[in-house]
Amino acid sequence: MKKEHLILVTNDDSVNAKGIHALVEVAKQFGEVVVVAPDKPQSGMGHAITIHDPLRLKKTNLFENTNAYACSGTPVDCVKLAIYEVLNRKPDLILSGFNHGENSSTNVLYSGTMSAAIEGAMEGIPSIGFSLADYSADADFEPAKFYATKIVMQVLKSKMDKGICLNVNIPKLSITEIKGIKVCSQAHAFWADRFEKRLDQYGQPYFWLTGEFSDMDKRPDTDLHALKHGFVSVVPTQYDLTAYSSIEKYKSLEDESHS
Amino acid sequence: MKKEHLILVTNDDSVNAKGIHALVEVAKQFGEVVVVAPDKPQSGMGHAITIHDPLRLKKTNLFENTNAYACSGTPVDCVKLAIYEVLNRKPDLILSGFNHGENSSTNVLYSGTMSAAIEGAMEGIPSIGFSLADYSADADFEPAKFYATKIVMQVLKSKMDKGICLNVNIPKLSITEIKGIKVCSQAHAFWADRFEKRLDQYGQPYFWLTGEFSDMDKRPDTDLHALKHGFVSVVPTQYDLTAYSSIEKYKSLEDESHS
Repeated sequence: MKKEHLILVTNDDSVNAKGIHALVEVAKQFGEVVVVAPDKPQSGMGHAITIHDPLRLKKTNLFENTNAYACSGTPVDCVKLAIYEVLNRKPDLILSGFNHGENSSTNVLYSGTMSAAIEGAMEGIPSIGFSLADYSADADFEPAKFYATKIVMQVLKSKMDKGICLNVNIPKLSITEIKGIKVCSQAHAFWADRFEKRLDQYGQPYFWLTGEFSDMDKRPDTDLHALKHGFVSVVPTQYDLTAYSSIEKYKSLEDESHS
Repeated sequence: MKKEHLILVTNDDSVNAKGIHALVEVAKQFGEVVVVAPDKPQSGMGHAITIHDPLRLKKTNLFENTNAYACSGTPVDCVKLAIYEVLNRKPDLILSGFNHGENSSTNVLYSGTMSAAIEGAMEGIPSIGFSLADYSADADFEPAKFYATKIVMQVLKSKMDKGICLNVNIPKLSITEIKGIKVCSQAHAFWADRFEKRLDQYGQPYFWLTGEFSDMDKRPDTDLHALKHGFVSVVPTQYDLTAYSSIEKYKSLEDESHS
């Protein structure tokens, strides 16, 4: 394969995270890599963009032989700045990750990693978000790199469907334990949130978001099911949130308005 | 109708915005209202949650005869804090808005207003995001209130479909100019972003996100089409981002992994 692609790599754990360095190694096999990623952790930022503050962009030499920039904004800001300021043209591929921690199920909505990939899809660029189900800063990304290489290779071979990106999650298993890849749907799980209430030095309350994740989805084809059974999960993910199957039901609102 | 419902009202423009005060007036017709909304503007925050900082929650008397709290976090944080700390039970309805400015088309992804409603849907609570296509702080919300009342009335009458919320946009028109309600799909439009580059007092660059919105979607049933033609748009909006129609295509990744 010719090294001809222009590949943007970003993440939400910042330019300092081990995961993005591992993903850059994957990307370099396929073309010229440019990194534009947050200058500090931006986990949980979802599809946030920075509109009330200006953005800063600084060249960094954290990535050997690779043009790389640390951005003061969110992952979605990084994608926008990369396309419109750094690259001055749309890249051929956007890779976001490796996230330190799983982004399966409804976590896709909170995930800065996946929002960067979704933003890429909105720009019409083949985009993939990669997450490893291991939160540790020193996680082993070798199995993740193997599967990311496989998936990128195939995505570059065939055109990506319009309006979608891929959400790839890799279980925390060794290369021999991982059973393969499953193409899945996003599990309908959710966070049963709790807040830890504390008092500050003035006796004023503050809250830390915490909670427990519960999988209520009994379907066998979900990403959570695949991960639990030792597979890498791949969910084709779209930015069209229309619930087409509900349109008919709400048509009655139209009658109401004309009555 | 009995005043029996517990209704949470939130937004992304903060407790000080005219829009949320207008929406509280709508909500009060249907039950007990509690406000938990950001203490400062949180537009463009998408589905962001606050995980690296603690959250603050302060009672405010900005809303006459209404329990109201200003929260230091994002709109999604507000919904979570409301359910798990303030109300101690799930409300019967969540209303988010009125946003000062349209949240049609792909703006739904960036919108804090809509993310609050989507979070409500994830919690299994009937939720509606309302936006008026008028950015001005002093916008006239009377026509918006009329249509919101109509829509809330109907939503309370019939059960909402599982996994969805409604995205309602009201055009900037007088009550006599608005032609009615259209139930629509989310238009496939996007922002052609630009950044305005400036230099600070030290000669260092910074960037302001700006851009132009372009509607590339020729379908006649989109929210942008409805708004352009004088209708209130209602889009049933889901949090399941799975592109089900693309799953088959990517099944080849599974073969690849077993070869």
